[in-house]
Amino acid sequence: MEFTAQQIADFLQGEIIGNPDAKVNNLSKIEEGVPGTLSFLANSKYIHYLYETKSSIVLINKSFEPEHPVQATLIRVNDAYTSMAMLLNMVEAARQPKSGIDPNSFIASSVSLPSSVYIGAYSYIGENVEIGENVKIYPQVYLGENVKIGNDTTIYPGAKIYRDCVIGNNCTIHSGVVIGADGFGFAPMGDSYVKIAQIGNVVVEDYVEIGANTTIDRATMGSTYIRKGVKLDNLIQVAHNVEIGNNTVMAAQCGIAGSTKVGDNCMFGGQVGLAGHINIGNHVNIGAQSGVTKDIDNGQTIFGSPAQPKKEAFRTAGMIKRLPNMLKLVEELQQEVKLLKQKLEE
Amino acid sequence: MEFTAQQIADFLQGEIIGNPDAKVNNLSKIEEGVPGTLSFLANSKYIHYLYETKSSIVLINKSFEPEHPVQATLIRVNDAYTSMAMLLNMVEAARQPKSGIDPNSFIASSVSLPSSVYIGAYSYIGENVEIGENVKIYPQVYLGENVKIGNDTTIYPGAKIYRDCVIGNNCTIHSGVVIGADGFGFAPMGDSYVKIAQIGNVVVEDYVEIGANTTIDRATMGSTYIRKGVKLDNLIQVAHNVEIGNNTVMAAQCGIAGSTKVGDNCMFGGQVGLAGHINIGNHVNIGAQSGVTKDIDNGQTIFGSPAQPKKEAFRTAGMIKRLPNMLKLVEELQQEVKLLKQKLEE
Amino acid sequence: MEFTAQQIADFLQGEIIGNPDAKVNNLSKIEEGVPGTLSFLANSKYIHYLYETKSSIVLINKSFEPEHPVQATLIRVNDAYTSMAMLLNMVEAARQPKSGIDPNSFIASSVSLPSSVYIGAYSYIGENVEIGENVKIYPQVYLGENVKIGNDTTIYPGAKIYRDCVIGNNCTIHSGVVIGADGFGFAPMGDSYVKIAQIGNVVVEDYVEIGANTTIDRATMGSTYIRKGVKLDNLIQVAHNVEIGNNTVMAAQCGIAGSTKVGDNCMFGGQVGLAGHINIGNHVNIGAQSGVTKDIDNGQTIFGSPAQPKKEAFRTAGMIKRLPNMLKLVEELQQEVKLLKQKLEE
Repeated sequence: MEFTAQQIADFLQGEIIGNPDAKVNNLSKIEEGVPGTLSFLANSKYIHYLYETKSSIVLINKSFEPEHPVQATLIRVNDAYTSMAMLLNMVEAARQPKSGIDPNSFIASSVSLPSSVYIGAYSYIGENVEIGENVKIYPQVYLGENVKIGNDTTIYPGAKIYRDCVIGNNCTIHSGVVIGADGFGFAPMGDSYVKIAQIGNVVVEDYVEIGANTTIDRATMGSTYIRKGVKLDNLIQVAHNVEIGNNTVMAAQCGIAGSTKVGDNCMFGGQVGLAGHINIGNHVNIGAQSGVTKDIDNGQTIFGSPAQPKKEAFRTAGMIKRLPNMLKLVEELQQEVKLLKQKLEE
Repeated sequence: MEFTAQQIADFLQGEIIGNPDAKVNNLSKIEEGVPGTLSFLANSKYIHYLYETKSSIVLINKSFEPEHPVQATLIRVNDAYTSMAMLLNMVEAARQPKSGIDPNSFIASSVSLPSSVYIGAYSYIGENVEIGENVKIYPQVYLGENVKIGNDTTIYPGAKIYRDCVIGNNCTIHSGVVIGADGFGFAPMGDSYVKIAQIGNVVVEDYVEIGANTTIDRATMGSTYIRKGVKLDNLIQVAHNVEIGNNTVMAAQCGIAGSTKVGDNCMFGGQVGLAGHINIGNHVNIGAQSGVTKDIDNGQTIFGSPAQPKKEAFRTAGMIKRLPNMLKLVEELQQEVKLLKQKLEE
Repeated sequence: MEFTAQQIADFLQGEIIGNPDAKVNNLSKIEEGVPGTLSFLANSKYIHYLYETKSSIVLINKSFEPEHPVQATLIRVNDAYTSMAMLLNMVEAARQPKSGIDPNSFIASSVSLPSSVYIGAYSYIGENVEIGENVKIYPQVYLGENVKIGNDTTIYPGAKIYRDCVIGNNCTIHSGVVIGADGFGFAPMGDSYVKIAQIGNVVVEDYVEIGANTTIDRATMGSTYIRKGVKLDNLIQVAHNVEIGNNTVMAAQCGIAGSTKVGDNCMFGGQVGLAGHINIGNHVNIGAQSGVTKDIDNGQTIFGSPAQPKKEAFRTAGMIKRLPNMLKLVEELQQEVKLLKQKLEE
């Protein structure tokens, strides 16, 4: 499919500078632009690429004024990043959707599937599973008995969802995700341990995205909750009875220990670790690789291991940098005091 | 199934306070209790929930005396946590066990299966695999040739066990676990690397639990050992030729580099990293996110990155906290010494 | 198969000390040697095992002179480690290669497969997939539409490769690897987030090894690149639009955030985290558990979180160790200054 600058500007309600007949059939990054593609410029770090790019069309912010001549046709929009996201999503939406039920899949006899559902080869749909409209289940997925999947949810190849877990509407679950494996619960008995059965489940609410190979354990009793709009990156560990609040976003390889509650609209960098049984407020930002062992109030920004409020963490880091100077100063003082003592004793 | 307080008290050898005919058909956490469920109280942090809970029955420790009236029927037992674990395990045991061999599974011709075994759909059982009594192999599992699985072991959907690996009795292996992938061994050759074949295996002894998406690499030669009673949480990395001693417990996302030996009855917090070729003694506790690069003696408690004994780590942390004050003190001293000098020179 | 010391010495161009008719049929570690096996000695830490080992043959370096009598037959070679690697690879190569296309696999109608290819049971090969000569695809693998796999590449059970991704020649991809899942891209919209479609792909060049359960996300636009000869251990996260340069080696559980570029011939310890949008030069070494937030020049060795050049990191660590002494010194000075003041005031 090919579009003109005019068509794209009309769609994005933007203003053309240059040739309205410039044509593109793909999207590219501005630094990798080739003729026939459309790019965008939002980050000021990338401005110099605008004057070199081979892209045929570039989206720019209304507020931006080029300082040199530009070869590409420009389309000025309110927000170049958001407009680009719209175009990316259009390209994605144009892909042929998967449909139909592969005969090489196992559907338990008690399951009734809407005709809008896709089930890929070698997937296993256990007894009493409920699946909503327009759900896409790629090959090699496992849904244990009594699992519920809401409407318009996509489950990528090989994801595994243990019995009794509940997934909402409009969720995206990537390959290798494991939802509902047993929480890590053992009671000491002498030198060894006895397993404590984990009879709860996991509840994933609407509009949640779960990245590849992330694991979310079932509750001992009750539920582990992933609330509406949560976005989890890859290789994250969510332990039993954790609750992650609405619209909280976590980068890859974070680990949340058992029974911890994370509030709404938090942002975690990668490789963050949270101890068990703590409460993280709403709108909390946690820097990458931080380790958090205590409750954190709403609105805090923390980092470090153990994590400190941003201000304290900076002060500590600054102090540590000043240590060599401080030592030198102390040694000078030591020398001066020695001299003073000598003088006094004279 | 419904049980009375009397039936439960008899089973747990407990003493009833309240209505022996109170009936329950499920278990719940005390803070989420609803009528018809049984909860427990063990952690003193949760005592206030006892006076509010809607649970019909609550297990309490013999040593505990309520200070306010309680609506629920109480059952006093020696150890409420252990009693609850028993009930959880009973609920779990009451679930209909999986059985039979799914016709949509691949069983190599050289394999003979006990009639007590369950093999789920789309699982692959390679040549010369040996499987014990009452083994449950869920769908989409892979067992490479010559793999041995002991009695009463459960392997959840999609776990992959490479050829020649050995799993003991009464083990639980969760979805996404990979046992026996190649150790990370490469010999430099000029600027690039040549792979060193990994011809050993992994030996997992009895009563081991391995969490979702954990990876345990095969040995270069010989075996990587996971000893009896070890409990590994999710997303843990165990490199080639590692040995993890009896009853050692590791929380999620730990990583153990090649040829390291961990002793018996150790406890690791989450996200701990161990360097290769080191020895960790028995009964060693390692705090979350620690990095360990040296041998550790029996019975040590260490944390930090690099890890230090608890006492030193606390001292260091305390010192760092005192840095701003120390700097202030040094500056004051500097001022005073200057004044003293002036006075002396007068 | 059994070989004599003479046969092995001839093959390795080594020199025999002892019995040229000594026979072995397997390889072992020197500390676990049993009769009928061959071991090697390269690391001086292990020399004492040479005098105790039960191995029938031991490879030693030409430069090494035993100081005590040795029971085993020795073969002196230029480099015992490399020679052992050659023997390991010979043992591996002697294994019966997998071949044929399992009838219980799904091959899309548009795919044509070379006769040299192995496709295992329950694998899914999507439309327009291209597969080279001698490729081995184990059971339960997923290759989305338009995936390309070069010659002589092996993909272990259960690996998942999303549509449009490209894998080179002579690659090894272990179980549970996910290549091409969506990059973690969301645009804020009020309090919640809108997904940004990820329409790029992943390009893995030749001679790359990817460890179990590692995840490599597709680019937003363009490609995420894993260059020739890269070796990634298990459970590593590579985010969208990352580029990892030729022959770079990363230990387990590293995480590389979006759009970061890593140079050639770097070595990363385990659990390293890299921020997004940074550049790491060539021949950079990064210590385990480091956190890197800034560009790093060629040839640097860094560690710590935040990472520092080796020299500075050591100085900082040394300073922190000296803190208790520094504090003591400051307190002594405080006391002395007090005394001096008293004296002056007298």
